[in-house]
Amino acid sequence: MAVRAAVAGASGYAGGEVLRLLLGHPRVEIGALTGHSNAGQTLGALQPHLVPLADRVLEPTTAEALAGHDVVFLALPHGQSAAVAEQLGDDVLVVDMGADFRLRDAADWERFYGSAHAGTWPYGLPELPGARAALEGAKRVAVPGCYPTAVSLALFPAYAGGLAEPEAVIVAATGTSGAGKALKPHLLGSEVMGSMSPYGVGGGHRHTPEMMQNLGAVAGEPVTVSFTPTLAPMARGILATCSAKAKPGTTADDVRAAYAKAYADEPFVHLLPEGRWPATASVYGSNAVQVQVAYDAAAGRVIAISAIDNLTKGTAGGAVQSMNIALGLPEDTGLSTIGVAP
Amino acid sequence: MAVRAAVAGASGYAGGEVLRLLLGHPRVEIGALTGHSNAGQTLGALQPHLVPLADRVLEPTTAEALAGHDVVFLALPHGQSAAVAEQLGDDVLVVDMGADFRLRDAADWERFYGSAHAGTWPYGLPELPGARAALEGAKRVAVPGCYPTAVSLALFPAYAGGLAEPEAVIVAATGTSGAGKALKPHLLGSEVMGSMSPYGVGGGHRHTPEMMQNLGAVAGEPVTVSFTPTLAPMARGILATCSAKAKPGTTADDVRAAYAKAYADEPFVHLLPEGRWPATASVYGSNAVQVQVAYDAAAGRVIAISAIDNLTKGTAGGAVQSMNIALGLPEDTGLSTIGVAP
Amino acid sequence: MAVRAAVAGASGYAGGEVLRLLLGHPRVEIGALTGHSNAGQTLGALQPHLVPLADRVLEPTTAEALAGHDVVFLALPHGQSAAVAEQLGDDVLVVDMGADFRLRDAADWERFYGSAHAGTWPYGLPELPGARAALEGAKRVAVPGCYPTAVSLALFPAYAGGLAEPEAVIVAATGTSGAGKALKPHLLGSEVMGSMSPYGVGGGHRHTPEMMQNLGAVAGEPVTVSFTPTLAPMARGILATCSAKAKPGTTADDVRAAYAKAYADEPFVHLLPEGRWPATASVYGSNAVQVQVAYDAAAGRVIAISAIDNLTKGTAGGAVQSMNIALGLPEDTGLSTIGVAP
Amino acid sequence: MAVRAAVAGASGYAGGEVLRLLLGHPRVEIGALTGHSNAGQTLGALQPHLVPLADRVLEPTTAEALAGHDVVFLALPHGQSAAVAEQLGDDVLVVDMGADFRLRDAADWERFYGSAHAGTWPYGLPELPGARAALEGAKRVAVPGCYPTAVSLALFPAYAGGLAEPEAVIVAATGTSGAGKALKPHLLGSEVMGSMSPYGVGGGHRHTPEMMQNLGAVAGEPVTVSFTPTLAPMARGILATCSAKAKPGTTADDVRAAYAKAYADEPFVHLLPEGRWPATASVYGSNAVQVQVAYDAAAGRVIAISAIDNLTKGTAGGAVQSMNIALGLPEDTGLSTIGVAP
Repeated sequence: MAVRAAVAGASGYAGGEVLRLLLGHPRVEIGALTGHSNAGQTLGALQPHLVPLADRVLEPTTAEALAGHDVVFLALPHGQSAAVAEQLGDDVLVVDMGADFRLRDAADWERFYGSAHAGTWPYGLPELPGARAALEGAKRVAVPGCYPTAVSLALFPAYAGGLAEPEAVIVAATGTSGAGKALKPHLLGSEVMGSMSPYGVGGGHRHTPEMMQNLGAVAGEPVTVSFTPTLAPMARGILATCSAKAKPGTTADDVRAAYAKAYADEPFVHLLPEGRWPATASVYGSNAVQVQVAYDAAAGRVIAISAIDNLTKGTAGGAVQSMNIALGLPEDTGLSTIGVAP
Repeated sequence: MAVRAAVAGASGYAGGEVLRLLLGHPRVEIGALTGHSNAGQTLGALQPHLVPLADRVLEPTTAEALAGHDVVFLALPHGQSAAVAEQLGDDVLVVDMGADFRLRDAADWERFYGSAHAGTWPYGLPELPGARAALEGAKRVAVPGCYPTAVSLALFPAYAGGLAEPEAVIVAATGTSGAGKALKPHLLGSEVMGSMSPYGVGGGHRHTPEMMQNLGAVAGEPVTVSFTPTLAPMARGILATCSAKAKPGTTADDVRAAYAKAYADEPFVHLLPEGRWPATASVYGSNAVQVQVAYDAAAGRVIAISAIDNLTKGTAGGAVQSMNIALGLPEDTGLSTIGVAP
Repeated sequence: MAVRAAVAGASGYAGGEVLRLLLGHPRVEIGALTGHSNAGQTLGALQPHLVPLADRVLEPTTAEALAGHDVVFLALPHGQSAAVAEQLGDDVLVVDMGADFRLRDAADWERFYGSAHAGTWPYGLPELPGARAALEGAKRVAVPGCYPTAVSLALFPAYAGGLAEPEAVIVAATGTSGAGKALKPHLLGSEVMGSMSPYGVGGGHRHTPEMMQNLGAVAGEPVTVSFTPTLAPMARGILATCSAKAKPGTTADDVRAAYAKAYADEPFVHLLPEGRWPATASVYGSNAVQVQVAYDAAAGRVIAISAIDNLTKGTAGGAVQSMNIALGLPEDTGLSTIGVAP
Repeated sequence: MAVRAAVAGASGYAGGEVLRLLLGHPRVEIGALTGHSNAGQTLGALQPHLVPLADRVLEPTTAEALAGHDVVFLALPHGQSAAVAEQLGDDVLVVDMGADFRLRDAADWERFYGSAHAGTWPYGLPELPGARAALEGAKRVAVPGCYPTAVSLALFPAYAGGLAEPEAVIVAATGTSGAGKALKPHLLGSEVMGSMSPYGVGGGHRHTPEMMQNLGAVAGEPVTVSFTPTLAPMARGILATCSAKAKPGTTADDVRAAYAKAYADEPFVHLLPEGRWPATASVYGSNAVQVQVAYDAAAGRVIAISAIDNLTKGTAGGAVQSMNIALGLPEDTGLSTIGVAP
């Protein structure tokens, strides 16, 4: 029996990517597609790469439009998911690709997002300890942020293995689709091509508390995170370079073993053989995560690097993976570890 | 029962792309993978995006390695396919992604490729009149060149409808993967990024006679082709801008009608609604062809433009589509019209 | 004695480029900088690459602000130049980088721009026959469009030599800066990177009548132009691929000789040696024009290709070159033929 | 009187860039241009953007060819400079853009470069304390590495001010020209476009000891450096994100003051106003360095970020700046802080 899925916010990049994946999902039937300012337009005009849906017309995002589905994906601006979710029944699976239900600490939410905390839903990063079990049968899922996905998967094995001091330093590069379709001057192609630039420097990026939440839970102690995001001249992909001082006595073999253990059975995380390093091109359009780790003896630091596609594993792929778990389907249904390269 | 497929030349871009598609093909089981200078290496080192095949080791390209398969894809340098094909049985389907068996005119072959003509195989562009029937049950398939695919699909309806004079002018832009993995200075990222440049200007490009062959067959008279290829700063994609003088009396409605008729039932060709134009981003990684056409009354010309992914519909997707037809499978098995965008 | 220059519209790409060049011009002193919606902001925020002007503040575009200069560069939206120019004295050199005073035919202007024709000023493409003389001592200059610059310099020698039929077919690729800083979805980096797409197909682009005007004047007969512009994934540069049927009896030597003659003494046009082709990277940031030409005997066509930097020779460099001529300075003062590559 | 300059290694990216700058240097006359495998070719074929030198032919790199110049720039592979320099007189200014004479510690040299240490020359980063004085009148100059230039200028004020703990963590992104013109598969445009990837992870990059040397000298104590370089999809530019724990008691005002003091009078370093961040696009083709710094109170770290053009300030611009100082010319002769953007 088909799983009937609606997508609220189908005109944006997250909405388009979840539709791209759902079109290839053998158990899903695509239902209502809604938008706000783009309601009334065809998907062919808004998402011309989704040829099979070219003639579908966006409806306004209303409870009526979203009613009667088994799953509703929310790809809405931050702060708008709660109001929509409340109108959907408790028996409908709601997968929120926004930030609204990710943080457990209301004060963190208020400080970084400037509005009242809506609550906390099961967290859609199944690779984290305990996360998969919490997703089974869930009716509400908070999909992680794209940076927290990349960073948590790069670093958590070091913390799970008790190998790293609780002060992480992270520099990550993202493709421009991570900034969405908003019309801002610095996102114009003329500005982006040929340029690398940082933003949200000094602790201000909203994904920082989410990383601290994930890593602290694994470490069993608070982990501070110094996070610097940078905008790279590419449409997709995140490369996260993460490091922390090694705990005294840590060896390169300890580090390798911790990562091998953490990722022995994960379908989407590909711990690379020694000597090879992640590249965002290798995971383009796929749900795979490439991870590699090194121990820098001279600096006494563990260096862990991951590459993901920010729109796939970092957003819509993580959403579909979580949906699969919540519905009891095989976790990799409709998802692939095969990138589109070169 | 699974179709067992081998790929000769699995380390290059065409070989990698056909493997990417075959991994998603529900009827195919991937057999031998062979290479020349890269034999002995793992596919993980050579094609890091093909995670499920990361541990597979390339064998040398020999008759023994390729024996025992239902289909053999050849992704070899021009001029090498005939010798390999001869060693494979007549009951094996051989799909040649090289140029060796595309041209019917031996003199054309010798002039443009500088070696003896090997012969002519059924031509793997099913959308051309008569081509699909010739592929059904075939044991040998010549996959078209990437540019001739884009150009023929842009222009043939105008010739089939008797609307265009037999002198076509074509300017096409290709992504760098069209030039392969060869280590040439002008293909370095430093040289390519931010630059557009032409090559093979003045009639010298090897794909010119193939375009003339295709268009001439449809037109029922010889068609001259002025073809200028350009290298664009992107990894994938061909945008072909094609035009010809309209035959006297041609109207814009005639043109539209000819294209609508030609592509009414084609699964992979998406004739865009009026007012929208092809973009290579929309067909990234997909087997779709976007086509649009206009009649420029002031200049008296039909302007037809197509966008394809040079590695997918332009090479490996066309190969799989032809394999499906030759084997009697549904033509779109394992193929998609959904691009990876943005 | 310094030439005092003002720039109206200093926040856009044309305005920024003319300032970049004027900063390196040994005779110019930069005066007022004006803007519209950005008035009151520093240039450091708007044009961060112009470090020496970082603390300058944009004034509103008024007659008072622009008064008291020797030269005023107008980088305004189409249709706004006439009103500003009227307020400037007849003894001030006004260099308009907009379209308002380029076309001689009022009907052409009205059809393509949809407003009343403002008039015609001396045309700032000194390489065209007669143009340089008309610029000497001029007080008003209309800088050509970027595409007409590239196309006219590629093709006019063929027409001047009587070698080409009066039907030109042109396909050109431009970097995204050609579309300006306007916030439009299709100009976002996420949409542009990795994509080639056409626009204004079928005769609708506003630069078409300007090309016809230039080529027709040289040919001594009307020349129709089929022009297809395409947007390329790069910030700067135009590659124009232009062709026309050769007049009967034309030889490859005739073609070469016509181009050699036309460009023997031009300081900015670099006719490449045979066998080498233009690349936009080679003229990045420079006022140089690379030109090459071939005669395709099989198709009977002259193929001429040019590469320019759309913002430099295509806009602001052409403006400064024209200013130099108008003021009686050496034509290449402050201008360079050296590109920034790779 | 003109300074006569030769360039050994004129076919590579560093050689091309130094020629680009020297062509605009009012005191320099360009003499011999030499190469190795490219000797006998014209510069027009090898560096097509240097139009005024298009007809110059590369000579082999010999003592004879390089004799009779006032300055010789060496753009040779690592390890080859000493042998060439020995053959040049002591009264000739030799500016080495290779690594051979940068490191003071022979053991560091041998460990990272695997050959015998050639010696140490005055270090061409005038902004470092004491460096400018050492360059005045010098006859031998070692131009810094591109990464050490970006990193040292980002971080040294924090160490000079006694504000940072001696453990720096650095992640830097470079354009592909930093890897030179070598024909390696991972540098192909098809591989680079759309991809970010790290290399030399874990302490192995050769520029690490040079950074430690620079920062340690300023700090007055050994500084360990954890350095991760990444390759970005752009031709030029380095963005260096650098951080270190703040010394106890450090305030945001202390940090700001230290940077303002360090860069108050530096002609090429542009400390940005608060709230604006460096971008490589802003320094494209210029000798400017954009620097910004923040104090992350939550993480207790100083975050300093710089952007340079790796070929200009990071290589050839630094070389010309050092030449100017060594020859007693104004330091900014022939150099600019104006980037080519967008």
